[in-house]
Amino acid sequence: MDRHDEFSLRRSRLLDRLREARASAFLTTALPNVRYLSGFTGSNAALLVTPDRALLFTDPRYQTQAPQESDCEVKIAKGPFSKEISRWFKRLHLKSIAFEENRISFSDFQLFHEAAGTVRWKPMNGAVEELRMLKSPAEIATIKASVHLNSAALEQALRRFRPSMTEVDLAAEIEYRMRRLGADGPAFETIVASGERSALPHARPTDHPISPDRLLLVDVGATVAGYASDMTRTLAVGKLSPKLRRMYRAVLESQLAAVDAVKPGISCGAVDRAAREVLRGYGLDALFIHSTGHGLGLEIHERPRVGRKERMKLQPDMVITIEPGAYQEGLGGIRIEDTVVVTSHGCEILTPTGKELVVL
Amino acid sequence: MDRHDEFSLRRSRLLDRLREARASAFLTTALPNVRYLSGFTGSNAALLVTPDRALLFTDPRYQTQAPQESDCEVKIAKGPFSKEISRWFKRLHLKSIAFEENRISFSDFQLFHEAAGTVRWKPMNGAVEELRMLKSPAEIATIKASVHLNSAALEQALRRFRPSMTEVDLAAEIEYRMRRLGADGPAFETIVASGERSALPHARPTDHPISPDRLLLVDVGATVAGYASDMTRTLAVGKLSPKLRRMYRAVLESQLAAVDAVKPGISCGAVDRAAREVLRGYGLDALFIHSTGHGLGLEIHERPRVGRKERMKLQPDMVITIEPGAYQEGLGGIRIEDTVVVTSHGCEILTPTGKELVVL
Repeated sequence: MDRHDEFSLRRSRLLDRLREARASAFLTTALPNVRYLSGFTGSNAALLVTPDRALLFTDPRYQTQAPQESDCEVKIAKGPFSKEISRWFKRLHLKSIAFEENRISFSDFQLFHEAAGTVRWKPMNGAVEELRMLKSPAEIATIKASVHLNSAALEQALRRFRPSMTEVDLAAEIEYRMRRLGADGPAFETIVASGERSALPHARPTDHPISPDRLLLVDVGATVAGYASDMTRTLAVGKLSPKLRRMYRAVLESQLAAVDAVKPGISCGAVDRAAREVLRGYGLDALFIHSTGHGLGLEIHERPRVGRKERMKLQPDMVITIEPGAYQEGLGGIRIEDTVVVTSHGCEILTPTGKELVVL
Repeated sequence: MDRHDEFSLRRSRLLDRLREARASAFLTTALPNVRYLSGFTGSNAALLVTPDRALLFTDPRYQTQAPQESDCEVKIAKGPFSKEISRWFKRLHLKSIAFEENRISFSDFQLFHEAAGTVRWKPMNGAVEELRMLKSPAEIATIKASVHLNSAALEQALRRFRPSMTEVDLAAEIEYRMRRLGADGPAFETIVASGERSALPHARPTDHPISPDRLLLVDVGATVAGYASDMTRTLAVGKLSPKLRRMYRAVLESQLAAVDAVKPGISCGAVDRAAREVLRGYGLDALFIHSTGHGLGLEIHERPRVGRKERMKLQPDMVITIEPGAYQEGLGGIRIEDTVVVTSHGCEILTPTGKELVVL
């Protein structure tokens, strides 16, 4: 299937949802959804989909790029989109428009509402996000490429590890390798946290040298052709205390148990519980202060959420992370994270990097 | 002034606006505004400011980091913020709440609206953004550090330029130097566009080798301690045609004229016109397809917009970019961009990098 066919197939699936909702058109102003449905990668756009037409609105900076990337009709708007798009509502005789109430700002909605006159607005949250949960073969191939590139970048950077390195030095080295290997850039702020700073699940790298005989937590993701990867490894720099070694074993077992639980039909909550139960056996479940994982794709956090009470059932071609952790203030934190794709019988771990404790 | 005093001063300025609006509290869910008012740098937060208290809501991942960074009362919420925050509306007997209709999603607003019961909601757009337009001495110092680091990173990367380099190689080198020099990361997707690709104002770097005897456009910004920098330079790789050399001269003159126009009391529109008039003299004004500049700070695009019809008057301590350009499809594009701070009599150019045509 060629690239443009894929976008048109996605829009036709959306139109099925549109018919169910009895709306005559769908409007999105969320860039990842615009990209998913149109192929356009610019930073300012809106997309209007009707049964017959797909109109991509962007500004003059993208007048050359937009028609190259997208099979939609490109409309260049000079001012705010709401006026130009509302004119098309009238031109196309649209009676009711499905919109994303979780993606549009309160004030943008008001602008459309005023400009569009008698159009009826139908809230339709998460329809595109739902389509995006199930990845196409081309998307899975791209995510796999992103995951592999990400692992290669971490590996290349760790080969250059020196004891005098700071957290920032290592983060810079990883991101540089990522870029050289062809990534668009990091998918999120790279986390490199040494010693007790590893207990901050979202620590920013600092100028502190990476401490000897302590933990080193690295959470890193690349964006490749628009698709995110996400991986965490916790390493030992020198010798760890028995307490930390036990914590590592607990988190690793927890991660393996959760990966093992992944299969079509199981709820996300059950996968989360599989991770938590192992940590409970070690008396460490109170230190696991976030959810077990999340979907990823055009965005680093997508549906489904793999959290405590999530009833959503996994399906083949969903791509999720599995990343339990344990964090003790003043001591340190451990997290181990892979990206996996749900298959017909279980899952395939996409992340090629080993998970046994590596000592630098 | 110590760091915490600055946040508390900002909140007290906001409270002045709150009194004018006759609202009993201010709620923001926009991360740059949360950071500006509280000091908290995490990726998930909301802030509620009343005349007596400032409550910072975040999730358990940040339970250690939030009190370290912020002088506000930290409240850790496990589920969606709307419920927890609405409970505080009641506890604090708040009658009316000012909110940012341009920052909150339509559906988040609805959640608050339902959870909060009889509270009156007062739209108050852009109040924090207006405060943020006027930078404090500490903010100007940080932006200056960001701008200088950005220039140093570009300079170091260009010293490593080799004719076999691809656009991606050069982008990777610039971002690596940025990181090593202490940046949080790039402030936006680095643009490195060679030859006719420079005519795409927002081109992503590709695997194409940087072409000889053509233009090379580099638009790059760093984030340093949260604050953005932004600079564009267009270089010559080898020998340029007389047509491109003339275009370069026109854009440079246009940029100098716009910088020259910057002073307190002048409208943003007049600065934009100063740039456009020079290009008109060269018959190139139709090729200048974006506005002349924008404010920057905690975000890469802030108020004021330096565009065609903008009546906003410049004031001392505003920080803006000046970046006219000319883009001809099939031939190439030229843009030259500095960051400047408005002073009492004119402006100070923060960007230390020269603007004469550099031949690589």
